Amino acid sequence: MAAGFTIRASLFHTPAPDTLEHRELQLVTVDETGRIESVVPDDPGHDRTVPVGVDIDLGPDTVLLPGLIDTHIHAPQWPQLATGLDLALEDWLFAHTFPLEARYVDVAFAERVWESMVPSLLAAGTTTAVYHASIHEPATTALAAACHRHGQRAFVGRVAMDHPEGTPEWYRDADAATAVERSARSVDAITALTGRAGLVRPIITPRFIPACTDAALAGLGELSAATGTLVQTHCSESDWEHGHVLERHEMTDAASLDRFGLVGDHTVLAHATHLTDADRTRLVERGAGVAHCPLSNAYFANAVFPARASIDAGLRVGLGTDIAGGADGAVLAQCGHAVTSSRLLDSGVDVSRDPVGRGVPGSRIDIVTAFWMATAGGADLLGLPVGLLAPGRRFDAIAVDLDGLGIWDEVDDAALVFEKIVRQADHSSIRRVWVDGVDVTPASTARRTASGTGSD
Amino acid sequence: MAAGFTIRASLFHTPAPDTLEHRELQLVTVDETGRIESVVPDDPGHDRTVPVGVDIDLGPDTVLLPGLIDTHIHAPQWPQLATGLDLALEDWLFAHTFPLEARYVDVAFAERVWESMVPSLLAAGTTTAVYHASIHEPATTALAAACHRHGQRAFVGRVAMDHPEGTPEWYRDADAATAVERSARSVDAITALTGRAGLVRPIITPRFIPACTDAALAGLGELSAATGTLVQTHCSESDWEHGHVLERHEMTDAASLDRFGLVGDHTVLAHATHLTDADRTRLVERGAGVAHCPLSNAYFANAVFPARASIDAGLRVGLGTDIAGGADGAVLAQCGHAVTSSRLLDSGVDVSRDPVGRGVPGSRIDIVTAFWMATAGGADLLGLPVGLLAPGRRFDAIAVDLDGLGIWDEVDDAALVFEKIVRQADHSSIRRVWVDGVDVTPASTARRTASGTGSD
Repeated sequence: MAAGFTIRASLFHTPAPDTLEHRELQLVTVDETGRIESVVPDDPGHDRTVPVGVDIDLGPDTVLLPGLIDTHIHAPQWPQLATGLDLALEDWLFAHTFPLEARYVDVAFAERVWESMVPSLLAAGTTTAVYHASIHEPATTALAAACHRHGQRAFVGRVAMDHPEGTPEWYRDADAATAVERSARSVDAITALTGRAGLVRPIITPRFIPACTDAALAGLGELSAATGTLVQTHCSESDWEHGHVLERHEMTDAASLDRFGLVGDHTVLAHATHLTDADRTRLVERGAGVAHCPLSNAYFANAVFPARASIDAGLRVGLGTDIAGGADGAVLAQCGHAVTSSRLLDSGVDVSRDPVGRGVPGSRIDIVTAFWMATAGGADLLGLPVGLLAPGRRFDAIAVDLDGLGIWDEVDDAALVFEKIVRQADHSSIRRVWVDGVDVTPASTARRTASGTGSD
Repeated sequence: MAAGFTIRASLFHTPAPDTLEHRELQLVTVDETGRIESVVPDDPGHDRTVPVGVDIDLGPDTVLLPGLIDTHIHAPQWPQLATGLDLALEDWLFAHTFPLEARYVDVAFAERVWESMVPSLLAAGTTTAVYHASIHEPATTALAAACHRHGQRAFVGRVAMDHPEGTPEWYRDADAATAVERSARSVDAITALTGRAGLVRPIITPRFIPACTDAALAGLGELSAATGTLVQTHCSESDWEHGHVLERHEMTDAASLDRFGLVGDHTVLAHATHLTDADRTRLVERGAGVAHCPLSNAYFANAVFPARASIDAGLRVGLGTDIAGGADGAVLAQCGHAVTSSRLLDSGVDVSRDPVGRGVPGSRIDIVTAFWMATAGGADLLGLPVGLLAPGRRFDAIAVDLDGLGIWDEVDDAALVFEKIVRQADHSSIRRVWVDGVDVTPASTARRTASGTGSD
């Protein structure tokens, strides 16, 4: 448990999708429970002396940002991050991904992966992660325990998948009843773990409709209702997935998930690239939202998720790396990818078409909106009081060293500095990480920072 | 001048657009001029003892790659890297870029920027850079001198731009005659610099047709013919630029540049997104090629350059960061962006369209083709004997530490390791850099490497 403390720092955050707030030299006070108590300007007439009561002074060359929220990660795919990205989704799943996920029957292997992944993600600034684990209960519980151990805020879901055609026989739940029972036991096991209250929570995780029988989907919907546990799944990711559900259930993916009780307040639907307007309205009414995974979508979604239109329609939208469908585990990098893909949606891609009608004008977002998705938007999607450096929020934050980010006083105002941070900062720029008021800076970062050579 | 030496290392390179070659533990011998003399397998029965005659043993966890070739950089835009990317090209130029470039009348400012930029690019593995400088002769000569000083292979071009409508009056050559004279003097000044023979060369650089009068374009074409100096410029980057030339010259950009004598063997045309089939045929016949800048294109080109079709048509294609139109100065990162944008061209972006006809099927490239563009393809574009680790080539190479790139022996074969290197390695993974046989590892990299903390 952290004691209360005060940090002096300049900060950036994004209270709304198009609003960047920059506050120079603030005193951020965090109470003993990890809640931000106050954020007030340091005496503007101050000299550079650290005022009485300041426990941590970040200095003029380091800024504080809200911690980053990754709303969609496949934890067992960590070892295949950045590979296999020349394949179609179905091939990628059956030739690479399912064989890898099947290995997690071996808890020792799982433990090795989690011990690599969780600190690496913290070092990249991911203070909250929403994980799909594997079908295995012990490996899933071990993942939740690793999050507790390293202090990462997380939702951890055992993956339910029992469809005899949509899954390989060597990697599936035996039948619908087994799928639901194992998910229920996993919810209980994660809830029972010792650790900081509320930090690591279970989440009910049917993989996606093509991998689940109707009986399993119905049972998982009932489990969510009975236990009040959140739900995550994939929805209308690609033409293939979208078409599968239309053919099998004669309705859209979102509509079908909804009738099984799998679309509720703060449900996380990954990708959702091919939503109809009616789907979107339905999700807004339910309070569900989308984990937008821009880089992964370029590879597997057959189109670009319309982030601008979705946010404007009131849909909850967070950002996801979709490890390992996305080739980059850093949420900050995904902010850049989100802007890039929105620009290509805006302009279109095929030069042989007339400019009018080539793209979807009005689709572009900028880096502020992307960062909002990665922080306050993701927090709203998940119903977590994080994502902003404001009183009442839990203190999930990162300290970013500006040295090495190419700041030039001659040309950069605060907005340009912010753009450089989001586009250029990486694990080597992130100096400290806090979750729920606790300093959880990974040992590797602490070592690098202490040596003072990491910002080259 | 380097003495001859032998390196023991495993290596990867791409001799053809779709060919990845992996060679475990080779002895690479470089002669005293910097030319690769031989690449032969180390005795396969060897123990881990370093054989007699090996000067540098990279060990099992570091691999050798060809140095990266950035075929399109605007050097004076270095201070604005990663900013302003929510604007249209014309606004970006006039509101941000031209005012910044105009500052380089101040040579002291220019020197500060070059001293930041050249070592940073070397640290990111850019062993060859093709620079647009500014209109200023002293700043341009200083850039060439900085490349000599730090040992980076480069083409450096003073930017010619004299059009009274296409340029601001506070940042242009006074008239066509002045533009040509200043370019001629800059060619001479760069050629006269003391330094390693052939390392840094001038390149004639009309900015693009919208910024140049016909008289300047004609004069620069004559200058190229008279001096045998290569040419670079922009060509058909966006709808706006493409349309400007069609309207002004009643022919395409490529055709118009050609009639001015500005399209020849190894001419570097940046972007070339909107080429017609006839343009492409013309460029292939001339031996000219394209600096493909995938990330920049997503922001400013209104479409995706068809890399696959262009390579298949026999067009020379290299990769460019287009600093600062592209938000990332690392060529390896551009490899990822090239694959990503090719996938979006292949699939299309607008979900409201039918999958058939949404994109341009057959457009996708993979990471091998992207890396080929960044090395052997770029070398072919420029007519330089680099880009491969093969006898007869100059030794331009980087040593990449595999530690921290997430290699898992359980799942990774050589091709997957290569994909992880290209997608995940950054300045913190690059341990040593050689150009023309000379170790030019920047001091910052050497410091980090010596401390042993950079690979976390």
